[in-house]
Amino acid sequence: MTRPFNFSAGPAALPAEVLTQAAEEMLDWHGAGMGVMEMSHRGREFMSILAQAQADLRELLAVPDNYRILFMQGGALAENAIVPMNLLGGERAGERRTADYVVTGSWSVKSQKEARKYCDVNIAATTEAEKFTRLPQVSEWQLSKDPAYVHICTNETIHGVEYFWTPDLAAAGLPADTPLVADVSSHVLSRPMDVSKFGVLYGGAQKNIGPSGLTLVIVRDDLLGRSLPFTPSAFDWKTVAENDSMFNTPPTYAIYIAGLVFQWLKRQGGLVAMEAQNKAKAELLYGYLDSSEFYRTAVEADCRSRMNVPFFLHDDALNEAFLTGARERGLLQLKGHKSVGGMRASIYNAMPLAGVQALVDYLREFERSHG
Amino acid sequence: MTRPFNFSAGPAALPAEVLTQAAEEMLDWHGAGMGVMEMSHRGREFMSILAQAQADLRELLAVPDNYRILFMQGGALAENAIVPMNLLGGERAGERRTADYVVTGSWSVKSQKEARKYCDVNIAATTEAEKFTRLPQVSEWQLSKDPAYVHICTNETIHGVEYFWTPDLAAAGLPADTPLVADVSSHVLSRPMDVSKFGVLYGGAQKNIGPSGLTLVIVRDDLLGRSLPFTPSAFDWKTVAENDSMFNTPPTYAIYIAGLVFQWLKRQGGLVAMEAQNKAKAELLYGYLDSSEFYRTAVEADCRSRMNVPFFLHDDALNEAFLTGARERGLLQLKGHKSVGGMRASIYNAMPLAGVQALVDYLREFERSHG
Repeated sequence: MTRPFNFSAGPAALPAEVLTQAAEEMLDWHGAGMGVMEMSHRGREFMSILAQAQADLRELLAVPDNYRILFMQGGALAENAIVPMNLLGGERAGERRTADYVVTGSWSVKSQKEARKYCDVNIAATTEAEKFTRLPQVSEWQLSKDPAYVHICTNETIHGVEYFWTPDLAAAGLPADTPLVADVSSHVLSRPMDVSKFGVLYGGAQKNIGPSGLTLVIVRDDLLGRSLPFTPSAFDWKTVAENDSMFNTPPTYAIYIAGLVFQWLKRQGGLVAMEAQNKAKAELLYGYLDSSEFYRTAVEADCRSRMNVPFFLHDDALNEAFLTGARERGLLQLKGHKSVGGMRASIYNAMPLAGVQALVDYLREFERSHG
Repeated sequence: MTRPFNFSAGPAALPAEVLTQAAEEMLDWHGAGMGVMEMSHRGREFMSILAQAQADLRELLAVPDNYRILFMQGGALAENAIVPMNLLGGERAGERRTADYVVTGSWSVKSQKEARKYCDVNIAATTEAEKFTRLPQVSEWQLSKDPAYVHICTNETIHGVEYFWTPDLAAAGLPADTPLVADVSSHVLSRPMDVSKFGVLYGGAQKNIGPSGLTLVIVRDDLLGRSLPFTPSAFDWKTVAENDSMFNTPPTYAIYIAGLVFQWLKRQGGLVAMEAQNKAKAELLYGYLDSSEFYRTAVEADCRSRMNVPFFLHDDALNEAFLTGARERGLLQLKGHKSVGGMRASIYNAMPLAGVQALVDYLREFERSHG
């Protein structure tokens, strides 16, 4: 039996192998006599699951030793508050500080809006006037003098804009210790990243990692201990780090599924192999869209996301027919986000090349029958 | 095949029926062509799961119409900060206010400690001097004059102390609108509760509801809109309520499992039937412990938790042998919390009477062979 291909932007498709293993272990994990959902988080069984997940993630992403991997809750939206709460205190807690935000789509719009509760926000650059179809280069950024941090969203899930380069803040004239903070929710683990160029990486799990309800935070050691005094303990990175993500009961089942995904990624050959696969998928899809007059994309070529591909039919009146036909062919959840319209194909790690090929075949078929 | 009996305090045993159904639906929920973990939270499939879970919970607990049911993240420990953040603002935001806490065990100790970040805390009563083995009556409470709220923990998971009565704050001389806030994590859904006597009920899901990573908040309508200005949007009850628990991506799979548990509870006959079953289980276990000189319990009879039963062997040197023998007989996770020592049997809804009987049989057997 072939499963339908699920193009949801998140929560998103997971590898069938992972789901099959989870189903098999649901009532009894490795002879423990209980399922993972039923285990005390402090028991040796779950502790081994947690340790393995952290170790595998560290290996996959080549996370340096001076970075902590935290498993938290609340998703990227909660982290939009948790980031400033954790970076605006410490020795300079008394100062009213500024944080710089580069706004490149819906997610960074939300991030800077939430940050205003905790600091002054300087919008270093925004492409809103161009409907978020390109990435502003660092040379265009209007950075403030001494920001507490600079925030970017390295892949905009809704607008389909992805960074394939990492800003160099020192070269841009900022103090050498200015942390670069990135929301990496929707493309983390899709390819290798140089973690050492960032102060903080964070993201919701529900795209390339596992179920919703789990938040990944990777933070450089020296940034711990800068929280504002009213930061809830459960969301204070230092507290979470000191308790190895067990200050509060962690989302144990979500961590277990994430761990199965990490093992699956290692079996695929790690992130170098995933990048090759994700490149091939994106080239196949964008290549077809570019070759057709029936469909169009809006994002500039150098920053088109390999994960989220928004596209439009030349006539919106055909949208419903397109989606109905897609569903009939087992191509699910292709409707675009309401703020952008049209269609969106999210082609995360768990989407095989065959799924993208099936979509392209359908794009061609639909164009022929409706062109 | 009989599953072992799992006495974990949380994350805790779930009904085998629920886990079996979840395993069966893991790759394909009701013909949707995808598992629940893979569904967009905004799609009609998950929306129906969420709506059904909310409706079933409202029915089970008889939640009045003027209360909102929120599905959040972070557990009770995060909520220890989220409660004061949500109740200390509004019209009286400028005032430095006091909140009253009744301290009856480890969990209320943690709650009041966290609240000190946001307000003055008045400890209305504490039984710490008696090692948390009894409940102070309202007549003993030293309430402040006009507290923002009064907080209790209605079942202390670690110390095994449970309220079988609800404090009447007006009768105690407080203004009629003073909200009573209760951490109900470890006994919610074990019996009917009169929700209307509370302003806020909250709890982590990982005892009687479902997987860890899901937090239940039931809040009276008129208490929405009192948040402090720095409350993260994702944890502002009003924002969460206005977005029907979908401001951020909710922990969709945990909500699905909770929904299956709610349906299972309805099949068991609802909370009246659960209470009868839980009473029978508690009476069987406490009855045996009381009848024996080999074991002892510490908590006073009128407030012994029906969910969490801490007990001690007359000689701690036998603890390891006891736990080893228990594991060999399929009685899992009986070790007491390190702060209390001894043993603890958590006998939540999913623990059948047969599990408690098996434990009592083993208690008797161990006493005979080691007495």
